[in-house]
Amino acid sequence: MDEGDFQGRLAATGEAVETILGELLAARPLAGEIGRPERLIEAMRYATLGGGKRLRPFLVVEAARVFGANGPGVLRAAASVEFIHCYSLVHDDLPAMDNDDLRRGRPTTHREYDEATATLVGDSLLTLAFDVLSDAATDPEPAIRVELVACLARASGIGGMAGGQMLDLEAEGRFVAERAPLALTEEEILRLQAMKTGALLTASAEMGAVIGRADKDGRAALRRYGNLLGQAFQIADDLLDVESDAATMGKATGKDSAMGKATLVGLWGIEAARERLAALVAESEKSVECLGGKAEVLKQAARFVAERKS
Amino acid sequence: MDEGDFQGRLAATGEAVETILGELLAARPLAGEIGRPERLIEAMRYATLGGGKRLRPFLVVEAARVFGANGPGVLRAAASVEFIHCYSLVHDDLPAMDNDDLRRGRPTTHREYDEATATLVGDSLLTLAFDVLSDAATDPEPAIRVELVACLARASGIGGMAGGQMLDLEAEGRFVAERAPLALTEEEILRLQAMKTGALLTASAEMGAVIGRADKDGRAALRRYGNLLGQAFQIADDLLDVESDAATMGKATGKDSAMGKATLVGLWGIEAARERLAALVAESEKSVECLGGKAEVLKQAARFVAERKS
Repeated sequence: MDEGDFQGRLAATGEAVETILGELLAARPLAGEIGRPERLIEAMRYATLGGGKRLRPFLVVEAARVFGANGPGVLRAAASVEFIHCYSLVHDDLPAMDNDDLRRGRPTTHREYDEATATLVGDSLLTLAFDVLSDAATDPEPAIRVELVACLARASGIGGMAGGQMLDLEAEGRFVAERAPLALTEEEILRLQAMKTGALLTASAEMGAVIGRADKDGRAALRRYGNLLGQAFQIADDLLDVESDAATMGKATGKDSAMGKATLVGLWGIEAARERLAALVAESEKSVECLGGKAEVLKQAARFVAERKS
Repeated sequence: MDEGDFQGRLAATGEAVETILGELLAARPLAGEIGRPERLIEAMRYATLGGGKRLRPFLVVEAARVFGANGPGVLRAAASVEFIHCYSLVHDDLPAMDNDDLRRGRPTTHREYDEATATLVGDSLLTLAFDVLSDAATDPEPAIRVELVACLARASGIGGMAGGQMLDLEAEGRFVAERAPLALTEEEILRLQAMKTGALLTASAEMGAVIGRADKDGRAALRRYGNLLGQAFQIADDLLDVESDAATMGKATGKDSAMGKATLVGLWGIEAARERLAALVAESEKSVECLGGKAEVLKQAARFVAERKS
């Protein structure tokens, strides 16, 4: 599969994910829901639809495909991860958190609506992720559904993504009198990033393995792959923040260095960061070698993550 | 069982729930969690421990007991509902939402810590609820665990509690130019309350039935009971808001009428509201008649909800 085919596959999955997200965010209440307030569902659609590379859902879909699973259930699992990702963006953008006005080239949810609505959008997307996973339409087997819930919850909460955002705010010196960024060690930065970004990327790959009924070794390989990909993703992101401009990224850039924030690129320098990135891509590719030719797309995804321009 | 025995039972369950909540909010990370940031877990404990009647967990525990289930798994299910309840209090208290400084007689979480931490506390408690439910320690059977997740998610999200908070903010006239409370109809108020408060109380009773392996009729009875109890709860709450003072309630009172907010008590008057409350209690008691003497505590819980003074 060449680069063009990969891009086509990424785009096609993105479209399929967009469709299922739109269906799950329909105005009509589900069975057992009392209603779906118009303003809230509209704002949830605003925060979720029409943007993003859908990298996490792509990982779910492609990981599942390695083990022979595809179909609407896999897309629902993929959508649930995207709901978590989108909720985190909405809450992280809030004035009390990162205070961002721009996201994917559009006003952030609290700028387009208001802070209260944005808070409820995040809460509702987060909850919807687990609603979707627990529904029999995602997988006929309860043991698979509950394992998906467990994977996603553990990766998203205090021990993963939300905890990582807490560490990030602390690293900015938010809760000390001087309010100056803290000088984190390499180990502390790695831990922060493993929680804030890595955990959800790892869960995406692992959830694909779970719904694909991977054996223990297959699941462990996908976990390892997701973990390495997550590290690569973060270094690429830091490099983009230094090298790119706001027009390409659709959000504020140069923000990390302007704030004096501790990043691996800042610690290592650009060249060493690029070398480490290349090594991580090679490691990711190796981690799925055991799965044979079916893992080719996952390898390309690792290269894509490292080379992306936005 | 007399009133004193009931109070003792409520207190004993409250203590058992406090213990399990404390255990689930330990500083040490769970397996698969990368870490538990100290500030975040401390704030989650602040928001969760040491207060509240623990009514929702009590309903889970007592509903389960009707069907012969008790033990640590039931308490975990009960704790998960309390996590959802506590997260909703923390987010609802935020300045952009209800802007409350006082909760259970103590500063609200964002006043004791800060807004960013409070936002993450809510997100993390919400996520932890599903983490706890999906863990095999809650129930050995995946089908039961995933049904608990489904119940709780459907009741808490856009179609339930979070959607109800959205309607409540809209009812306050928050998103219209005049910012004056809207004149809701009786039907609209009932719908708002069924979502904001009723859904989670109903889910509590239903989850007890689920973990107790109730048959279809038993589960339907508990749903109906929870629904009626929820309505009674809300009317009692509105009456307390009119009649009580801040010292007894540990939070601001008289707020609804001061804001000109539409409530059923405002619509019907105090006497008619008291009559409706008594009728709802009688209906709740009748709804669990089919379960025999084992449902005696649930009947007393309905009376307790109606007669509570704080």
